[in-house]
Amino acid sequence: MLARIYVTLKKGVLDPQGKAVQHSLESLGYDKVKDVRLGKYMEVKLDYSRAGESEPIVREMCEKLLANPVIEDYRFEITEE
Amino acid sequence: MLARIYVTLKKGVLDPQGKAVQHSLESLGYDKVKDVRLGKYMEVKLDYSRAGESEPIVREMCEKLLANPVIEDYRFEITEE
Repeated sequence: MLARIYVTLKKGVLDPQGKAVQHSLESLGYDKVKDVRLGKYMEVKLDYSRAGESEPIVREMCEKLLANPVIEDYRFEITEE
Repeated sequence: MLARIYVTLKKGVLDPQGKAVQHSLESLGYDKVKDVRLGKYMEVKLDYSRAGESEPIVREMCEKLLANPVIEDYRFEITEE
């Protein structure tokens, strides 16, 4: 199975890296950019045969290692590879 | 409009950061992990009223700044906020 995991900063948490990208876009002339938020995207290949089996495992991985639940939100989807 | 942009390393490009995460997961006891690839996820808010208008702009931003087309692939979707 393939888990696609998206980790984003929670609303309200400052994102200086996003602001830097925003300013870079503005200095390239993109004046319609209102906001940029950066996050992480992860693809985890798992040796399970059913999505139902991997779902609680992926959730646990996110809580323990892949995201910081204090400042980050995560969501994921699990598909066949 | 809100553009959600996913940037991933091209197939074949080494991903040492992904390998580090994979080893961390293994050392936490997740022995079913076969591979981990890390990428970037970006949310860009744009002051356009139609998705069709923003699509070529977002593509250009990706080519110029947000992704490195030599080693990275990108895809994006544009939605109402």
